[in-house]
Amino acid sequence: MSRPRTPEPALDMQGDAPRATRNEDDADRTQHSHRMLNFSDALLSIIATVMILPVTHTEISPEQQFDKNIQKLLATRIAVYLMTFLIVTVAWAAHTRLFQVVGKIDDTLALLNLACMMTITFLPFTFSLMVTFPEVPLGILLFCLCVITIGAVQALIVVYAFHFPHLLNPQIARSTHRALCRRHVLYIVLRGPALCFAAAGFSLFFYPASYLLMATVIFLPYVNKAASWCRQRLVGPQEPPAHSVEVFTFDLQEPLSKERVEAFSDGVYAIVATLLILDICEHNVPDSKEVKERFHGSLLLALSETGPRFLAYFGSFATVGLLWFAHHSLFLHVRKATQSMGLLNTLSLAFVGGLPLAYQQTSALARQPRDELESVRISCAIIFFASVFQLAMWTAALLHGPDTLQPSARFGGEEHAFMLAKLALYPCASLLAFACTCFLSRFSAAIFHLTQVAVPFIFLLLRLLVRLALRVLRALPGLARPAPYPQDAAERAPLLPAPC
Amino acid sequence: MSRPRTPEPALDMQGDAPRATRNEDDADRTQHSHRMLNFSDALLSIIATVMILPVTHTEISPEQQFDKNIQKLLATRIAVYLMTFLIVTVAWAAHTRLFQVVGKIDDTLALLNLACMMTITFLPFTFSLMVTFPEVPLGILLFCLCVITIGAVQALIVVYAFHFPHLLNPQIARSTHRALCRRHVLYIVLRGPALCFAAAGFSLFFYPASYLLMATVIFLPYVNKAASWCRQRLVGPQEPPAHSVEVFTFDLQEPLSKERVEAFSDGVYAIVATLLILDICEHNVPDSKEVKERFHGSLLLALSETGPRFLAYFGSFATVGLLWFAHHSLFLHVRKATQSMGLLNTLSLAFVGGLPLAYQQTSALARQPRDELESVRISCAIIFFASVFQLAMWTAALLHGPDTLQPSARFGGEEHAFMLAKLALYPCASLLAFACTCFLSRFSAAIFHLTQVAVPFIFLLLRLLVRLALRVLRALPGLARPAPYPQDAAERAPLLPAPC
Repeated sequence: MSRPRTPEPALDMQGDAPRATRNEDDADRTQHSHRMLNFSDALLSIIATVMILPVTHTEISPEQQFDKNIQKLLATRIAVYLMTFLIVTVAWAAHTRLFQVVGKIDDTLALLNLACMMTITFLPFTFSLMVTFPEVPLGILLFCLCVITIGAVQALIVVYAFHFPHLLNPQIARSTHRALCRRHVLYIVLRGPALCFAAAGFSLFFYPASYLLMATVIFLPYVNKAASWCRQRLVGPQEPPAHSVEVFTFDLQEPLSKERVEAFSDGVYAIVATLLILDICEHNVPDSKEVKERFHGSLLLALSETGPRFLAYFGSFATVGLLWFAHHSLFLHVRKATQSMGLLNTLSLAFVGGLPLAYQQTSALARQPRDELESVRISCAIIFFASVFQLAMWTAALLHGPDTLQPSARFGGEEHAFMLAKLALYPCASLLAFACTCFLSRFSAAIFHLTQVAVPFIFLLLRLLVRLALRVLRALPGLARPAPYPQDAAERAPLLPAPC
Repeated sequence: MSRPRTPEPALDMQGDAPRATRNEDDADRTQHSHRMLNFSDALLSIIATVMILPVTHTEISPEQQFDKNIQKLLATRIAVYLMTFLIVTVAWAAHTRLFQVVGKIDDTLALLNLACMMTITFLPFTFSLMVTFPEVPLGILLFCLCVITIGAVQALIVVYAFHFPHLLNPQIARSTHRALCRRHVLYIVLRGPALCFAAAGFSLFFYPASYLLMATVIFLPYVNKAASWCRQRLVGPQEPPAHSVEVFTFDLQEPLSKERVEAFSDGVYAIVATLLILDICEHNVPDSKEVKERFHGSLLLALSETGPRFLAYFGSFATVGLLWFAHHSLFLHVRKATQSMGLLNTLSLAFVGGLPLAYQQTSALARQPRDELESVRISCAIIFFASVFQLAMWTAALLHGPDTLQPSARFGGEEHAFMLAKLALYPCASLLAFACTCFLSRFSAAIFHLTQVAVPFIFLLLRLLVRLALRVLRALPGLARPAPYPQDAAERAPLLPAPC
């Protein structure tokens, strides 16, 4: 009954599953959870990025100075966006953990999951209420109510799944310590809501304490992880009691599911890439009456008015698309995603979400030279951080050990130099553009647009360029090559003379 | 080198792929196309639904009468939405076909695909330009330019993939008629753009001809399919020439890829479910100054002002979620998706996209009793069509033959009655609600909200209800049960006494 959870249900469900489990009463009721998880990932990635919309829509008219008020408004909105992203990512990670324990679903679990999703989609609203009215307890109460509801639904899912053990991950279903495991999972699921319950109480008479408690909920996994890491460094690896090993496997040490990290990232990239076209389709179709009156019937003239927005769209789509491409190339070589890689991925995605804003600002403020310089610099910075966290993810994978990356991408592998070039291209290009604007501040827009056009072509020619660079490097005498990775040096040795 | 294309790249790429192909120069450069296709599906599903936003945002203030002008505006926008949905779905189907020929990708193909996606995302804008200014050639020209660009990029992809045959579907890569196949695929890819080229020419002096040509491009696959079906019925199945069998396998007779239908549908459901929260998060966070002045500092009062919008959100999310759930249950039992099922799925999804509009109208117009009745009826109609096309999809699968559905869902299978109940619940509920509003028009809003609350609970208890209904049916004498499906009657006979 309880088969290992494979990532694809489509092929292996073709007919043999119902036949194999004929003798079970509820044979056909259990389903692989693959598609439900994909759907949840899509929902959560949209929700994570939704708060960038108020930031993107902050109107700055050319007459108005970029004054303190606007700056404060923009800063608040950006903070709301970043915190929402973090909160939803924490909810997503908890969801991932939960469905590593629950390996299969049936109709009841699918419906409970939908209820859970609906509550999570409400989080951004309560959060922005909280930021706009920090001293009114209602925002805090609503936020806590959401978290408590999510916890209650997740606890229901856990209780239900442990009641029908064939729904569980086979490793837990077969375990002798199932009751203990259930208690542990319930503890993890419910500790956040319990803290929020306390926070809701505090909000009525001493609200700073509520904020402290809520921050604890959000950072709990990372705090826990850091604490256990420190303990290990200081005391040395503890001898764990016999049963807790398998229990903790499903808690924090376990790498994240690679497929779900990919699905969540794909969702974020897709929604971010299309954010600007959503606006354009809605607001930039000129009105037929206006075209007649203002532009003497010339549609071309009316469209050229909004021309910069189209440029911004293409620039933003191309950058997001190419960052997706780098992410995709990276994860082709990743074997499993560790927790630190998950955190770096979240940070990278949070900056990716800011890209449409950056591009829109670059086009909207182009009329004022002083602001132009500023917004080009902000754009460069956002691109830099989005891409440098991808590079950091790769570094983390390289340093983590031999089983996180495919051999070909590790030190000395054929693809190592090429991967490095792919991931380093955007950080280098954005740094270069930023540096150029310092020296040639008058041409900042031109520099930015040049970068925008050049980078896709460099991506197309990257393999040739890397091969050329390696040839040149090898031709220079005295330049030491990095030592091949010890584990597969022998296996890889015959290939080393032609590394690309 | 050319392995069969499996839907999951994650597990089977762990290390063995590079080692197995060590002797090939470009071993590591080819990749499974799975994740790229998922990303494309996400992008395309967002783009398909984007034009519902102008419809949703059509403001109807309570003072303003629901007059002819608004009606015309709304009708135009709905037409634009439906046509855009159709166009993007056609583009998606073409993309599916293309990547059934091209089985694997490398970096160049991934970049070309991104370029293709960027052009497709621009289609909705050109289309709404065309509808707003039907007599100005610019809209037609832009639309045709997009289609031609898409065709050119796709032709490039085909030429590139046939130049490196290891990227092709193994069946084609091994074929002896590869050159012929390439010509045929190129013909299919380029015939649309060729027609659009002619349309662009006509737009300059006789624009009705352009519209005719563009309509041909969109409906070409269906026209072709219908023509070949009619020919088969009239003349009988033709003896095809030896080589064309395998060529045409990748054209029109082949069922659509089930995974991609699921991924595209998931994307549409996810974006539609969250459309209203996007609005709420952006526009319904009250302004702190306004709260002080208008509501004497009471946040609760300010929020209750926008209360109906939250109700609309929850109602719309629940309905979209449950329709997703029905779709998910259906596709668990589907083995392959035929072309007619694909068309029915598209129609169902197009109505799903209208759901947020329906719910918003129900809450926005609640102040005027006459409009309330109308909008409740429209909502019921949209829900009815969205769900009845799902039911039609199931019927099509049942009628198509034994290999489209799992045995357990076919006539006489254990899950047959349950599946029927799941898929028939929403059509019945919406019909019932519609009928009720005819008799009890004063309580239409109450009826609608009651349906909204009752349906999720019925879904939870559905299995029990179906079992009960079957018991009652069997207890009644003289009621014939449907004959079991002939092919597996023998196999299934021992199970028949306990059909649920």
